[in-house]
Amino acid sequence: MNVAGVRDYKWSNSEKKIARQAFERAYQRECEAIQKRVRAMLAKLTNADDIWRVHDFLSKKRCEVDNKYDYRYSVLIFVFARLLKEGWLDESDLDGLQEDKVSAIKEIASL
Amino acid sequence: MNVAGVRDYKWSNSEKKIARQAFERAYQRECEAIQKRVRAMLAKLTNADDIWRVHDFLSKKRCEVDNKYDYRYSVLIFVFARLLKEGWLDESDLDGLQEDKVSAIKEIASL
Repeated sequence: MNVAGVRDYKWSNSEKKIARQAFERAYQRECEAIQKRVRAMLAKLTNADDIWRVHDFLSKKRCEVDNKYDYRYSVLIFVFARLLKEGWLDESDLDGLQEDKVSAIKEIASL
Repeated sequence: MNVAGVRDYKWSNSEKKIARQAFERAYQRECEAIQKRVRAMLAKLTNADDIWRVHDFLSKKRCEVDNKYDYRYSVLIFVFARLLKEGWLDESDLDGLQEDKVSAIKEIASL
């Protein structure tokens, strides 16, 4: 695989639709997991001002998520590889993308 | 009351102790209320990414709280007046402070 070349992949309209859905699905899954972590943190708080630990956690996560979910086609293969590696994306979410894209995503995810 | 003069009040050691306790009590009460609001918000979230509304709320509250809870003796009468007005401080929390301080706090709170 030519890693630099994946930035130049062409995305058909149907692929763009699939990619957008996969991206949104991963984002929702990650937000759900964050929400679950917040609920678990709240259940364990002992002091009133521990609420700021929840704020610190959300600030950190928001920064991470804002940086991670970058929907530019030039970086999308790398974004999907990361999401796949971290478990926010399933391989089945990529069904319908051209084989070279799926292979590149999997290969980068395995690095 | 000479409003400017309240900045120059002298605080005895016993008053400082009472003031610190009152300040901490108000802070804990406000944090408890924020925590309660967060729990109520979480219970009503419909979408996974609504979690960022909780983050927005906490960011706003943290900024407000950080600005409000200023324990410099030069501004403490004004801080206590605000806390009293907003209900985070009870009059009974001020028991043991000199009468001129309590009067000033109540008078400013009533403005």
